[in-house]
Amino acid sequence: MKIAIVFGGISFEHEISIVSAIAMKDVLKEELIYIFLDENRDFYHIPTDVITSKLFSTGTYKKNDILTLKKGTFSKKAMFGEKNVDFDVVLNLTHGGDGEDGVLASLFEFNNIKFIGPRVEACSVSSNKFLTKGYANSCDVEVIDYKYFNKNDNVQIDNFPVIIKPTRLGSSIGVSIVKNQGELQYALDVAFEFDTDIIVEPFIQGIKEYNLAGCKINNEFVFSIIEEPAKADFLDFDKKYLDFSRTSKAMVADIDEELQNKIKQSFAKIYNTTFEGALIRCDFFVVDDVVYLNEINPIPGSMSNYLFEDFNKVLTSLTACLPVKNKINITYEYVNKIQASKGK
Amino acid sequence: MKIAIVFGGISFEHEISIVSAIAMKDVLKEELIYIFLDENRDFYHIPTDVITSKLFSTGTYKKNDILTLKKGTFSKKAMFGEKNVDFDVVLNLTHGGDGEDGVLASLFEFNNIKFIGPRVEACSVSSNKFLTKGYANSCDVEVIDYKYFNKNDNVQIDNFPVIIKPTRLGSSIGVSIVKNQGELQYALDVAFEFDTDIIVEPFIQGIKEYNLAGCKINNEFVFSIIEEPAKADFLDFDKKYLDFSRTSKAMVADIDEELQNKIKQSFAKIYNTTFEGALIRCDFFVVDDVVYLNEINPIPGSMSNYLFEDFNKVLTSLTACLPVKNKINITYEYVNKIQASKGK
Repeated sequence: MKIAIVFGGISFEHEISIVSAIAMKDVLKEELIYIFLDENRDFYHIPTDVITSKLFSTGTYKKNDILTLKKGTFSKKAMFGEKNVDFDVVLNLTHGGDGEDGVLASLFEFNNIKFIGPRVEACSVSSNKFLTKGYANSCDVEVIDYKYFNKNDNVQIDNFPVIIKPTRLGSSIGVSIVKNQGELQYALDVAFEFDTDIIVEPFIQGIKEYNLAGCKINNEFVFSIIEEPAKADFLDFDKKYLDFSRTSKAMVADIDEELQNKIKQSFAKIYNTTFEGALIRCDFFVVDDVVYLNEINPIPGSMSNYLFEDFNKVLTSLTACLPVKNKINITYEYVNKIQASKGK
Repeated sequence: MKIAIVFGGISFEHEISIVSAIAMKDVLKEELIYIFLDENRDFYHIPTDVITSKLFSTGTYKKNDILTLKKGTFSKKAMFGEKNVDFDVVLNLTHGGDGEDGVLASLFEFNNIKFIGPRVEACSVSSNKFLTKGYANSCDVEVIDYKYFNKNDNVQIDNFPVIIKPTRLGSSIGVSIVKNQGELQYALDVAFEFDTDIIVEPFIQGIKEYNLAGCKINNEFVFSIIEEPAKADFLDFDKKYLDFSRTSKAMVADIDEELQNKIKQSFAKIYNTTFEGALIRCDFFVVDDVVYLNEINPIPGSMSNYLFEDFNKVLTSLTACLPVKNKINITYEYVNKIQASKGK
């Protein structure tokens, strides 16, 4: 199978997308075609045998062929006319902006490009933490209590410690733990520098965290192992960043079957029909045996490959059952009816 | 001001988008440029002086110039090279699919095109009724009780009458009122023909309905009049269709100031920062003086022009304060750091 990995994008996670994309070389056994979206929103075809992170940081990628996204494919200029890039499916590996906010999903849908990754609605409910909370509620999945504020609100917080998060950024960007009133204003300034909206949650020290990745294949859930990630107060950008290049296997969380099942059920409720076509990772908190959704990663770092026994098989099987939109026939029945009623 | 109206799209509401777009000729005093998106996802420049609904139903529109969407503009082939279409702003008037599901918003954002219309998240929370319910809850706005089912669920309904709605379609497509158990299966079949997901609400006879349109200009809400729309059991596609060509003024709902304010407050909560850049119409139900959100129309039929005293002024003022995304600088700081730590 020929998999075109689209990565980069105008995003705070541009660089981790590069790291994530390169990690695929170690874990996918298929033919990979690398398509880089740069900060000017130009697509480049990066030959698989030369790809390194340095290629991008030095700007050397610009020596490669520019690609044009068009109906059904990407194409490059050739000696005579154009040459299409040959692939079976796109893997959207653009973390953060462009990839996880629905922009690339829309471009692929508009151009009828078959792709693995979250569709537009899935992007909206996972890339915005405020919408994630509302979505989880609708799906009967618990979330940690929160308050939501936008840039015009007067933010009042009475109980500390809290964790302040811009609603739209991943990888802990703009996130602060605030221990008292004195630290509040600075944390708010930081968060509102990145976003028009924030959420504030109680900060619970030493909360148990479990990650589960998975997807739906032929209407059955395929789950990864449940991982208990390495703990820090919270993972900041640097620490998360290094995590994105992971290809070595994770340790299975030491929890009983009942809790494992609760976590899987919560995952299934969140995945629903909304995330069909995507392999996602949900990060859960557990307090007193109650499972709370923390966040949905609709394009997890290095696709959470390290959580799967046979990642290559999962990804290729998913390719065979991507969602297809119903055909809409445009008949002009109503326009004709109106014209008839007007006697035109 | 030069306003490029983008309309059509692959959508069940393709035709009402045409009617809506043509209605703009009567109500906007600006220079209009018509850009039609046809069922093959080709853009056409339709000269403003010749536009009629017949042009589309007969396929005659294909004699006009094809446009290519590119960075910052649309362009057409010219004698020598290309010629850009000259406009100040795009008005997204593509109802339903492509326009209200985030696809066009994404295309415009990707290509840095200034546009009036809902952004991606706004599209997701308004074009999917299940997400609308969750979003309204998050915004502290009441909604009518509902049950949600997807295509894999065993649908059990015990109390009738109910109204069954596909989650993703507007204009009452696939919607049925079900009076008893005997009518249920057929209604479910109809709804699931259009969508993978449905919501079921109690059907409340003679419920009071009020529509309010508006937008945020310089951080202040600009509201239309509150309209009590013409009632039928519910408006089916034909009836709603005719409504989309409306350009004559509506009647102000006969309700007291307290209720008017409640409706405006609910509108403001829903609009929030999510709908900035768009002129939307919210349709509310009122039962015992409690305001319930029924639906959000992020691109209302004929832009709800008939609800505004001076629609032209509202739309042109909105153009001056469209949301702008923060610039993201891609520094390759982290890639450099990793390379340094690897000693490369």
